[in-house]
Amino acid sequence: MEIDILTLFPEMFAPLDYSIIKRARDKGIVSINIYNIRDFTKDKHRKVDDYPYGGGSGMVMAADPIYSALESVIKNGEENPYVVLMGPEGRVFNQHIAKELSKKARLILICGHYEGVDERIKPAVSDEISIGDYVLTGGELASMVVTDAVCRMIPGVLSSSQSFEEESFYDGLLEYPQYTRPEIYRGMKVPEILLSGYHEKIRLWRRYQSLKRTLSKRPELVDMKKLSKEDKKLIDKIKSGDENI
Amino acid sequence: MEIDILTLFPEMFAPLDYSIIKRARDKGIVSINIYNIRDFTKDKHRKVDDYPYGGGSGMVMAADPIYSALESVIKNGEENPYVVLMGPEGRVFNQHIAKELSKKARLILICGHYEGVDERIKPAVSDEISIGDYVLTGGELASMVVTDAVCRMIPGVLSSSQSFEEESFYDGLLEYPQYTRPEIYRGMKVPEILLSGYHEKIRLWRRYQSLKRTLSKRPELVDMKKLSKEDKKLIDKIKSGDENI
Repeated sequence: MEIDILTLFPEMFAPLDYSIIKRARDKGIVSINIYNIRDFTKDKHRKVDDYPYGGGSGMVMAADPIYSALESVIKNGEENPYVVLMGPEGRVFNQHIAKELSKKARLILICGHYEGVDERIKPAVSDEISIGDYVLTGGELASMVVTDAVCRMIPGVLSSSQSFEEESFYDGLLEYPQYTRPEIYRGMKVPEILLSGYHEKIRLWRRYQSLKRTLSKRPELVDMKKLSKEDKKLIDKIKSGDENI
Repeated sequence: MEIDILTLFPEMFAPLDYSIIKRARDKGIVSINIYNIRDFTKDKHRKVDDYPYGGGSGMVMAADPIYSALESVIKNGEENPYVVLMGPEGRVFNQHIAKELSKKARLILICGHYEGVDERIKPAVSDEISIGDYVLTGGELASMVVTDAVCRMIPGVLSSSQSFEEESFYDGLLEYPQYTRPEIYRGMKVPEILLSGYHEKIRLWRRYQSLKRTLSKRPELVDMKKLSKEDKKLIDKIKSGDENI
C-alpha cells in the first residue's frame, strides 16, 4: 500500500518512523510519503491560507495549494486513489473503517488546519474522517492515528500470532487482564489459574474477564447476536456473580 | 500545567514541538516532560516487558519500571497528581474530558504498549483513557492527541478570539462551510451571502449550515434541550427544505 500525506507540518511525522509502522515500511509492505502543501503554492509568498469570506477570526486553508498538491501526487492515468480529508466533520474512525481502508491500494490523507479548509476542495475528496469528538489543532496527529491503525490491518505487517490475537480483539470486546513476572509484586499476586497450566481453564477465565470488563465499562460494545453459546453462559455467570467458571 | 509523559518511545514526541502546543510551552503556560520508562529499570538488561502468565503471544509491560518511573516523577509531598493510563479499556476521550483534564494542575500520562500492561499497575492509576474504538500500536499517539486537545482548553493558550470560536464549536455542532480567496475557483463560486456584508444574515446562514450539516452527518450530536428558539426555527426550515433564512 502507498500512503501519501499532505500537510503543512511535515516535520511532525517522526512517529511514523517507529515500531510496527517502521517495520512495515522496512519490509516494503507500506510506502509512506509526506508532502508539504506549501511546496505547491504558486505565489512568491507561498501563501497557504487567507481570511474567511463573511468574516470571523482565524484563517482558512485555500483550495488551490491542495488541488495542486493532489494533482502532483496523483499519477497520470491512475484510477481513483482514495482521498481522505482529516477533519472534525468526518465520519468517526473505528476499527471497521481501518479494515476498509487497509484494502485500498493507495490512500491520500489531507491534514486540515487553521479554522478550516475552503469548502471547494470537497469535490476532490472521497471521504472525510474524524478520529473522535474532540478538537485538535490540525489533522497531523489524526492522520498518524489512521495510518497506524490501517497499517496494522494489512496482511504481513503483524506477525501471524499477533494478527490472530488482534482478530480476537477485533470482535469488539475489551482485553482480559494481563500479568507478567514477578508472581507477587507489592503484595499483589497473579491469579492462581494463570499459573495452573490448564490451558482450557485459562482460556475460559480470560473470556469471562473480557466479557465482564466489557459489560461493566462499555456495555454498548457487547453484541449479543455475535456471542457464542459459551459466551452467553459466561454472561449468565457474570450477572449472577458466580466466579466459578 | 505540568504534563509528564512516560513512554518507551520518547523520540516519537516531535509533534509536541509545533504549532499551538509549542507556543503554549514557549509562553510557559504548559510544561511537558517526556520520560523513558526504560531508564527506570533496575536490571542490567533494562528489561521492560516479559511473557504473559497463562501463555499467549506477545509481551506484557512489567509493573515495576512503571512504578519506579511514577515514584521518580511524583515529587515528595505532592498531592494527588492525576495519573492517566492510555489504553483500549479506558473511557472514550471527548471534549468534555479534555475540559475536565485541562483543570488539573498536573497530569501524568502512561503510554501502554505491546500486548498489554501488567494489571497490577492499576492501583497507581487515577483514570484510563482511550482515544477511540480502534487498535493502535501504543499509547504514544493517543497521549499526544490528549495533550493537544487538553492544552487548547487551558486559558491563555489560544488567543481570545480563537477561544471564542472554539467555545461556539464546543456546543457540539459541526462547523459551517468556510471559503477564502479567490471568489471563483474552478468554476465554484463563494455563496453570495458571504460577500454581502450583512453580518446578521451571515451569522444566521452559518448557524443554518451548521445545524443542517450536523443533522445530516451526526444527528446524535444535536441536543434539542440545548438549542435556542432561533435554532429550532432554523431546524424547521431545514426540515421543510426552506433555504430562505
